[in-house]
Formats: sequence, structure tokens, C-alpha cells
Amino acid sequence: MTAAGERLQEVGELALLARIFRRLATPTADVVVGPGDDGAVLAGPGGEAVVFTTDAMAEGVHFDFRYMTPADVGWRLVAANLSDLAALGAAPWAAVISLAAPPETAAAAVEAFYDGAVDIARANGLNLIGGDVVASRAGLFFAMAALGKATGGKVLTRAGASPGDVLILTGEVAAAQAGLDILAGRAAAPAEDAAAAIARYRRPVPRVAFGQALVAGGFAAAAIDTSDSVSESCAHLARASAVGITMDGDALPIAAAARAVAAALGVTPLDYALAAGEDFELLFAVPPAKEEGARAAAAAVGLPATVVGRVTAPDKGILIRTAEGERPLRPRGFAHFGPFSGAGSFNGP
Amino acid sequence: MTAAGERLQEVGELALLARIFRRLATPTADVVVGPGDDGAVLAGPGGEAVVFTTDAMAEGVHFDFRYMTPADVGWRLVAANLSDLAALGAAPWAAVISLAAPPETAAAAVEAFYDGAVDIARANGLNLIGGDVVASRAGLFFAMAALGKATGGKVLTRAGASPGDVLILTGEVAAAQAGLDILAGRAAAPAEDAAAAIARYRRPVPRVAFGQALVAGGFAAAAIDTSDSVSESCAHLARASAVGITMDGDALPIAAAARAVAAALGVTPLDYALAAGEDFELLFAVPPAKEEGARAAAAAVGLPATVVGRVTAPDKGILIRTAEGERPLRPRGFAHFGPFSGAGSFNGP
Repeated sequence: MTAAGERLQEVGELALLARIFRRLATPTADVVVGPGDDGAVLAGPGGEAVVFTTDAMAEGVHFDFRYMTPADVGWRLVAANLSDLAALGAAPWAAVISLAAPPETAAAAVEAFYDGAVDIARANGLNLIGGDVVASRAGLFFAMAALGKATGGKVLTRAGASPGDVLILTGEVAAAQAGLDILAGRAAAPAEDAAAAIARYRRPVPRVAFGQALVAGGFAAAAIDTSDSVSESCAHLARASAVGITMDGDALPIAAAARAVAAALGVTPLDYALAAGEDFELLFAVPPAKEEGARAAAAAVGLPATVVGRVTAPDKGILIRTAEGERPLRPRGFAHFGPFSGAGSFNGP
Repeated sequence: MTAAGERLQEVGELALLARIFRRLATPTADVVVGPGDDGAVLAGPGGEAVVFTTDAMAEGVHFDFRYMTPADVGWRLVAANLSDLAALGAAPWAAVISLAAPPETAAAAVEAFYDGAVDIARANGLNLIGGDVVASRAGLFFAMAALGKATGGKVLTRAGASPGDVLILTGEVAAAQAGLDILAGRAAAPAEDAAAAIARYRRPVPRVAFGQALVAGGFAAAAIDTSDSVSESCAHLARASAVGITMDGDALPIAAAARAVAAALGVTPLDYALAAGEDFELLFAVPPAKEEGARAAAAAVGLPATVVGRVTAPDKGILIRTAEGERPLRPRGFAHFGPFSGAGSFNGP
């Protein structure tokens, strides 16, 4: 459509989503959590809570076959949906995948895509039970919708954080983004770091078991995944919970490759890390009394968990504190249709 | 992807789907009905049955903005998913929609798309609870995934028909296809018939309530929707049920506009109707003892229900009988990636 009027690129992704949300049907009593979180939550016919999420990936926007194989793309699409389930602390249940592909696409590529998707789905107990395959005019497009079962009937949402909560992040930041920048020839890193970063980009590991552990142990008050960048995730969490956040910039566990890539690109590692997309870590808020338990739960599954900030009163806003002082933390990362708010050509979420 | 080897257009849609199905994760005990029906069926955490379906639509393949508005496209995408739920006899529950659009797309078009989607969703008790909005390189693409609740814990699948069953079709055949052919300037029809056909193409009405009535009353043994054409639906039903089918060609309720369009295109109304896609009627098999009840259930919701054939032994194959005799009924309709098997340029399912 190229009718007259405002274009998507002028409206931007967030404003477009807000307009769409306003249009959606008034939720019924069945809808426990509506649009705007990592997934929606439904009250099932048997009274149990079902999590429903979707993620789409377009060629040339989310992936480029110069940098990843079709099997990597399949893995990554499933990882993105699993990460949404993980953020809500739900157990993977079942999923469908629709794809559009030009008729001249190699059949082997589509089959390899499914092989990659099935590999990670099976490893996480997710049943791929259907889909649709249609022709497209240009480029491949994949859309996946996944269901999860709420752990003990409970879910973690982006809302629920309170001033005083500790902000914890799993894993490392910006490895995947560094992997992409290395693949794209924009920067280099020492060989071992580069290989680790590229693997993190091509085959991300969503925090599925740990998300459920957070709910089962009642440790976290709110959670989100970091697919939109750490700074975007902070903004979403703060808005949904109606709180402020002060990040501890010096504590952020930045991947070794990301430090090298940032140096090569002439930005500080911190600025690079705050805007880096492509990660599927969990950022969650924990009441101080439960910090010990949350850390122990992470250690139990061998997952690093770093305190990266504090939840504050809403009037404090979203800040980042380093040895050099405090400054506002603006959400930066990939925005569909919007002006690019991040540094460089980011290729997420 | 344009790697060496077989292309999708050489493999064809059905063979590609077969290759994909072979790759999907081994279903667990949770999966009551796996890939290959109008929807999958899951055993929910509370023991209830949940239906999960998906349908995608690509610009230039499934829709053309010269012939339908963005709101029509939204309506139609939701109708296609509702029709899958109807074929399984499930009650609409919740759905997510992902869309990819070029950045230069008019924001008003995307908003109108959602308005059309919400209109039909709301009218059918379907909660639109989320989605994803991403950039595409060319053309719009929509993928929707919908959940339904099984009626009384039971579903209708394509399997289950037995020799001797009566084959019944709701509504009329080929109105939507005629509407498209008229809009595309390929043929004409009397004004009133043309208007009805165009409305049927732009704003199809899936048989949601009647699908549930079929299950609630225990009337049907198997069902499918006709989005792939009546002849394709017969082939799917016969294969899934391992039966033969003999259609009664003279009984097929062909829309008035379709008769006029067929004449203009120089094909018989029957050949036109058998290959026409775009309909969202239900084709279902009923044991003779339950024919009366099924007809009464249709009459109760004001829906025409016509006996269009019989289920036979598998060795009889799939035939069509008219006053002129009996001949094999080959599946014809729109096939993604395959050679076009239908007469003319069909634009579905």
C-alpha cells in the first residue's frame, strides 16, 4: 500500500503498536494479560493459565543468509519465541510456524530451516505441530506463534517491580550483536572471543529452565527478555511497572568480543552494550529478601546472574550510573519503521 | 535463498509440506491431532482440548489491493483462521497476528487492516491479544495463529468418514472465486449476482456456529473447510479418512454469479466450481441415521446444507457423477509453488 498519508517509517514501531493495541477487541475475562508484554496470558478452559506469544523474522531485516544458514534462522526464530515464554516463566508447550518464500527458493533451504527449528524445539520440549507455507514476491518471511503452560498457574510479567528491588541480568550482554558485527565485517575481535560471539548470534540459548525456576521459587517480581537491547528492556520494565530504574553501568557483564568490537567501532563498550540487540537473556526485578534465592537458582543451572541495578521510585526516571557519574538511560536498539535509535546498523530484535 | 538444487516451484506445496511434517518433533502425549488437519489439537493442562491453527496471506498471492481494501484483508485473514476452527467444531478463543510491511506503507492501511480484523474477531468471540510488526523488503505479509476451545472436549477432523456416509456442503460454491474474477475484469455477471459474489470474496463468513453445532449434536463423522476448493477438500477428506468419495455434480449448489462467470470464461459451471478457491464453507460426512439431525441443525441457523455426494469404499476412488456419467474427480485449485492445477489464475486459499 502506498496510499497518501503518514507512512510507517514516519510513525515508528512503538506508536504503530499503540494504535494497533487501541483497536484490538476488548479482552474478555479469559484474557489475564493482554497485548504489550512478552506474551499474552489466557485463563484456559480447565482454569489453568496458558501463555501465547508470537515473533516474526523477515529476510534482510532480521537475518541475512550471508551471515547465518537457513538452519540458524530456524533455530533463532524458535529461540526468540522460547525467550518470550522464558520471560513469563512458562514451560514450552506447542507452536506453529508460517513461512512465505519466493518460488525460486531452494527446497533444501526450507528443509534446513525446519531442521534448525526442530533441533531447539525438541531440546526444550516444544511441539511444532503445524504451519502454513505460502509464496512470497520477495524475500523469506517467517512467523511463529507459541504456547506455554504457566508454572504452577503463575506467570512473571513486565509489571510488578517495586522501588528497592534488585535488578538482575542473566548471562552476558552484546555477544550476539558483536557476532553479527564481526560477520558483517564491521569490526574484528580475538579469534576465540569472535567464535563465541558468532555462535551466540547464530544459535542463541533462551533461558527457558531458569525462567520457570524464577516463577517456581517465587523469586522475581517482574521480568523481560533482552531481545530489544538492555536499554529498551529497562524502559519497557519501568513503564509496565510504573517505577524508575538506576542501572549500574560498571557492573554490566559485557562480552569480551563486544568490548573489542566497540573499540574497533569507536564507541565505549557500555554504549555499545546498552543498545545491542539479539540477546535472549532475562532481566528481572527481585525483592532484596529474595536476591540470595534467585542467585542460588541461577547457580543451580550454571547460569551467571549479575546485579546490574536497582528499581527506584518512578519520579527518579531511568538512569545509568558509572564511576563518571549518573546520566539518563535512553532506550536504544533496533526499531522497525522508526529512525534507527541505536548506534550502527542493528539487526534485531 | 537461491542455492543450487531443487526449487520450491519444482517441489510443489504438498510435497514440501510432506517433507516438513517428517521433520517436525515427535509429538508428545499432549498432541491429540498433529500436523495435516485444519488445525492441531492439544490436550490442555486442565485436561481440556485446545485447537491451534495458523494461516498466512501474502500480497500479490492471496490479496491484491486493487480488489480489496486493507480492512477486507484483515477480515479475510481472520475469516480463514475462524474457518479452520469451524472445521474442527471449536469455539474461537484467542489469536495473534504478525505482519511484515515495507516502511513506506501507509500507516492508515495497517490501522484499517486491524479494524477489519477486529470487526470479524469480535463478532465471533475471538480475542486478538497480540502480534508482531516488522519491516519487509517488498509487499505485505500477514500471519495469524488462533486458538479454539473444543466443544464438549470433542473435535471433528478430516479423518472419521465411513463408506455409506452422506456428504453435505454448507452454503454455495464458487461465489467468492466469481467475485474475484469479476473484480479482476476476467468476466462479468448480472449486477446483483456480481455484487453478492464480490461481497462473498471480500467479506467471507466462516461457519463458526454451525461447526460447533455439528460437534455438539454428534452429527458429523468428519469435516473440512473448502478454502482449497471443493475438489481439493474431497481429496483431503478421502485421504485422511481412507475412503472413496462419489460427488453428485448435478447437486452442487453453484452460485449464480459463478455460472455467469464460468460461461464468460468458456468453462462449464461444474468445472469452474470444483476448482474454485476462496470459499469458507464446510464439507462434512454424516452417517445416514444422522442426516436429518444435521440438516435440522443447519436450518436452525439459517444455513443451506446440500447433500453433494456419498462416502464410498476406498477402492472406488474419488469420482464425480453427473447426468452425463461418472469420471474421476481430480483435486484442482490453487497450489503454492506448484504448477497451477486449476483453470485460470486462482488466488487462494
